[in-house]
Amino acid sequence: MRNRTYTADAAPGDEVTVAGWVHEIRDLGGIAFLILRDKTGQIQIKFEKDDMDEDLVETGLGVSRESVLSVTGTVAEEPRAPTGVEVTPSEVEVIAAADTELPLDPSGKVDAEISTRLNNRTLDLRKPEVKAIFEIRAEIQRAARETFRNHDCTEINTPKIVATGTEGGTELFPITYFGEEAFMNQSPQLFKQLMAGSGLERVFEIGPIFRAEEHNTPRHLNEATSIDFEGAFCDHTEAMDVAEAVVKAAYEAVAENCEAQLEAIGLAEEFEVPDGDFPRLSYEEAIERINATGKLDEQLVWGDDLPTEGEVALGEDVGEHYFITDWPSEIKPFYIMDHEDDEQLSTGFDLMHPRMELVSGGQREHRYEHLIAGFEQQGLDPEAFDYYTKMFKYGMPPHAGFGLGGERLVMTILGLDNIREAVLFPRDRQRLSP
Amino acid sequence: MRNRTYTADAAPGDEVTVAGWVHEIRDLGGIAFLILRDKTGQIQIKFEKDDMDEDLVETGLGVSRESVLSVTGTVAEEPRAPTGVEVTPSEVEVIAAADTELPLDPSGKVDAEISTRLNNRTLDLRKPEVKAIFEIRAEIQRAARETFRNHDCTEINTPKIVATGTEGGTELFPITYFGEEAFMNQSPQLFKQLMAGSGLERVFEIGPIFRAEEHNTPRHLNEATSIDFEGAFCDHTEAMDVAEAVVKAAYEAVAENCEAQLEAIGLAEEFEVPDGDFPRLSYEEAIERINATGKLDEQLVWGDDLPTEGEVALGEDVGEHYFITDWPSEIKPFYIMDHEDDEQLSTGFDLMHPRMELVSGGQREHRYEHLIAGFEQQGLDPEAFDYYTKMFKYGMPPHAGFGLGGERLVMTILGLDNIREAVLFPRDRQRLSP
Repeated sequence: MRNRTYTADAAPGDEVTVAGWVHEIRDLGGIAFLILRDKTGQIQIKFEKDDMDEDLVETGLGVSRESVLSVTGTVAEEPRAPTGVEVTPSEVEVIAAADTELPLDPSGKVDAEISTRLNNRTLDLRKPEVKAIFEIRAEIQRAARETFRNHDCTEINTPKIVATGTEGGTELFPITYFGEEAFMNQSPQLFKQLMAGSGLERVFEIGPIFRAEEHNTPRHLNEATSIDFEGAFCDHTEAMDVAEAVVKAAYEAVAENCEAQLEAIGLAEEFEVPDGDFPRLSYEEAIERINATGKLDEQLVWGDDLPTEGEVALGEDVGEHYFITDWPSEIKPFYIMDHEDDEQLSTGFDLMHPRMELVSGGQREHRYEHLIAGFEQQGLDPEAFDYYTKMFKYGMPPHAGFGLGGERLVMTILGLDNIREAVLFPRDRQRLSP
Repeated sequence: MRNRTYTADAAPGDEVTVAGWVHEIRDLGGIAFLILRDKTGQIQIKFEKDDMDEDLVETGLGVSRESVLSVTGTVAEEPRAPTGVEVTPSEVEVIAAADTELPLDPSGKVDAEISTRLNNRTLDLRKPEVKAIFEIRAEIQRAARETFRNHDCTEINTPKIVATGTEGGTELFPITYFGEEAFMNQSPQLFKQLMAGSGLERVFEIGPIFRAEEHNTPRHLNEATSIDFEGAFCDHTEAMDVAEAVVKAAYEAVAENCEAQLEAIGLAEEFEVPDGDFPRLSYEEAIERINATGKLDEQLVWGDDLPTEGEVALGEDVGEHYFITDWPSEIKPFYIMDHEDDEQLSTGFDLMHPRMELVSGGQREHRYEHLIAGFEQQGLDPEAFDYYTKMFKYGMPPHAGFGLGGERLVMTILGLDNIREAVLFPRDRQRLSP
């Protein structure tokens, strides 16, 4: 709109117009430096007070930090400037003056509480290290989509307003839908399975899911992004292959395409792409190995869910990412298929990271009678899910899939402490706005 | 899972295992043909009854249509077969038998009502011409994302559960959020603007929006996919450039990468990528030209909204896609900026297709006082939008953006009659399930 040259593009000798935010003003008396910041970086604007038009100096140095300025001038080399160049201005325009009191300091000199930061995300995302998280998040989604396409999947969008939840009525947010009761969907599970049985066969979705869980922890959200896969003629081992490919592709894409962002976060040195295959341990092997570490107060027995300390101990033992397979059927949802030769053992799997579960998946029950029995065992009325179950009578192929937590993936890749760091506007029990 | 060779990969001389759905069985007496279908196409399985194991013949020809079979056998050339090859089976396994009565016929020989089709999407999407729509839809989204990235945009995900709607309380679905009243978001408008003011500067989102409109037409949905852009330091002409680039990229991607799908829909011959720049007409010029066509019963006057017949008449005059700019301020939302030299005239624009509006956008009001005044003129309490308005005090750059209807784009590109054809599981006044 203003013949704007991005600050990063300003080269010695150019006459440029750069626009951005006032990051800092250093007034040294006869000379003053204004650092202008935009998404591409920072540039130094030099004011030599005695040699310049008084109005111009006053306009440029009279603004408060985070105001938006447009500066026209000539670029010259200056080794001491942040980018090795500086602009001597011939014209300065204040595009948007900022209040002198800011609720948080984007230069990062003053730390802010997470709640202050979330209340003022616009300012918070002017910090390069925060902006970098969301640029990386976008790159992770791009890489995930590309990987799914390379695995012959079609991207789908399933409805978020639904008549019934995936696993019944708990943990659902109720909506009033033209006078009828409806819910916000807690998972695309049933819809993606319906599509695996369609001519699309292999599908993926990256979209919001909604869970009315009362958890309030650094790793739970009430609205999250789910990365879902479902494939016809797949079993659980192939679903694990796809999950592993997506997670690895995310790391690789970040390593390859987000160098500047890793630098901004301070991870450029230590960032590592996972090496080799992710180990796949059966649940039985997992509890044995956890017990053998001696790090739990009580020994685990068959049927126990794995406690967090157990998962951490196992991670130290086998590597950062590992699958746990062959879970006891009773701890897995009814739509997960059991092994043919042992119905106590499910084909369910989890992809673990020492900090939390990343992926949950398995081969699905595609046999109509078994599925109906599963609903009943779960205490659910199969009639309410008729729209789903009846399709299993019309040639439903064996199929498998998984759900991968989008924010958890960002969080573990970047080592973030709180899942709220990985989402622009988190929703939790206390937070509904902005 | 079963050493499955896709039907499309079966080559003469190969010993293959192919799996898929029974598309058709033609029994000619001594010889019978079973057509097996999967996502890659169809393959002919030949049963020579007298020369083959009786059980094998019985299994293969005894199944009902749409059952899932796995067939192992030898591939041979057969010019009369649909793909030029056929398989003589040595083994046939019924993986999932289908009921003999199907609610709709995926071979497409019997037409079905749209409501029957939507109730049975799994079967409906086994029709190549329906599956093709959703493969094209996925390709359009891929192309849109790539175009936005080429325009320096970062993909974002904004919350769908919100405390206040974009334009107040009408047309919002209410949710109960841990005992508090909340809503499903009708547009990412306010959030994407907050991000244009952040260090990300240029953002896009492709996600669900929810509108409790009572419309029940072939071009309205209550849950739709919105393709949103917002850019700092952009004016409305640059936002139009981006919108035009995205729409054209969608057509180009379909032309380039979806030949088989266009074939399946019957559009391969006639499909055309828009040629040249989209004309940009001012609102004033638009009403003059519509009036000049003489196709309306009453002449339009300044301030009128454009009736559909007017839009169609104009499309015939200027071309399939065209922008209308410089709308009267009073018909555009309060967050759209007026022209600096004429506050009756807004920077709002629409991208029209003769069949419907595709895009709506404009430069946004970034001046705090003007924005607050806008809320008040709209009868909205600015206090309720404090989380949004206060960021305009901290250096909000000029910015512009648009929203593009995801389903409308698919619908106009493919010439679909009903928007429900462009979404897997539509939500409308009558339809909440599946």
